[in-house]
Amino acid sequence: MDDTLSRLTATIASRRLSDPEQSYVARLQAKGLSKIAQKLGEEAVETIIAAMSEDDTALTGEAADLLFHLLVLLDARGVPLTTVLAELDRREGLSGLAEKAARAQEG
Amino acid sequence: MDDTLSRLTATIASRRLSDPEQSYVARLQAKGLSKIAQKLGEEAVETIIAAMSEDDTALTGEAADLLFHLLVLLDARGVPLTTVLAELDRREGLSGLAEKAARAQEG
Amino acid sequence: MDDTLSRLTATIASRRLSDPEQSYVARLQAKGLSKIAQKLGEEAVETIIAAMSEDDTALTGEAADLLFHLLVLLDARGVPLTTVLAELDRREGLSGLAEKAARAQEG
Amino acid sequence: MDDTLSRLTATIASRRLSDPEQSYVARLQAKGLSKIAQKLGEEAVETIIAAMSEDDTALTGEAADLLFHLLVLLDARGVPLTTVLAELDRREGLSGLAEKAARAQEG
Repeated sequence: MDDTLSRLTATIASRRLSDPEQSYVARLQAKGLSKIAQKLGEEAVETIIAAMSEDDTALTGEAADLLFHLLVLLDARGVPLTTVLAELDRREGLSGLAEKAARAQEG
Repeated sequence: MDDTLSRLTATIASRRLSDPEQSYVARLQAKGLSKIAQKLGEEAVETIIAAMSEDDTALTGEAADLLFHLLVLLDARGVPLTTVLAELDRREGLSGLAEKAARAQEG
Repeated sequence: MDDTLSRLTATIASRRLSDPEQSYVARLQAKGLSKIAQKLGEEAVETIIAAMSEDDTALTGEAADLLFHLLVLLDARGVPLTTVLAELDRREGLSGLAEKAARAQEG
Repeated sequence: MDDTLSRLTATIASRRLSDPEQSYVARLQAKGLSKIAQKLGEEAVETIIAAMSEDDTALTGEAADLLFHLLVLLDARGVPLTTVLAELDRREGLSGLAEKAARAQEG
């Protein structure tokens, strides 16, 4: 279902060094880390406001923007998305263990 | 590679109505949309600061937190992650077409 | 020294109903609370990034932007700046008392 | 009316080197710029959410928190509040001139 993010990650990496006049990603990377971090922050603010406004069409668009700029930021810092996903997997494993332990205590 | 997010989405949905004393997700959902949106904002701020500090271990952890809370927010509003990913696919299609059109013009 | 904020508050209130084509404040108020809150968020993000970049000229400009948009937001919600400052005074009083109490305990 | 901020600025400067166990400002300064910037971001997020929730009591408290942490951040960077207020004065002068010019054109 969601190899979307893997493909998008590859696209972002491949456009990093494209002509800034033709590629939004290249333009953003050319502006540097501060600008990319700023865009991530702006998209997070817009996601919050769309959620609080209960505007789900806007929320879909802003969440997509937020994910996209998170991928650009990870690319800019050289942190692979797979590392972030592995961290989520690791935590879910821990949390499953914690739930099991809690249930064992109860029983 | 990244069915992590699909699995995590299912986990979050299944814990939504768990005992808040046993589940962080249930606790967050019980506090309501404002609190979930606030957490998303805080994680975005921490992601920005980790990136600007060039601390990639912190960035990995904060990006994981940001993704996690985005999934909780989408769940709270009933917006499927698949809808957000479909929006990203749609845009990438458009952007591919735009690049092709731009290249055709040049050629 | 800082009746700047009082004067700016009055200016913002007086421009609220101006011609949006002539006044930035009127334009922002016409767009509604979500847009004003969004601008506040964006200026906070830019303030964070200027601080983390140790760029004090940028920090001065962004802090000014943040204060300005906070005043516009308070005006949009009808919360007087004086009420916010009174809250700060009240807390400082409490904190002074807490410090005194802590010192008394030590002594 | 609002020498509150001047006084608070002086208080923050005087507590910067206090015992972190007795002073919140000293504790925050000891944690460094990243932590102070993070707190500013969190308070901005909470201000946005209070405004969007139309909860004016919360907005008053969060706006006070935001102002307080902005003053701590300026102190941490050595940027005087008076410099930020002078920038706001300068802009208001420019904006007044721009409005005058616009009105002259119309007349």
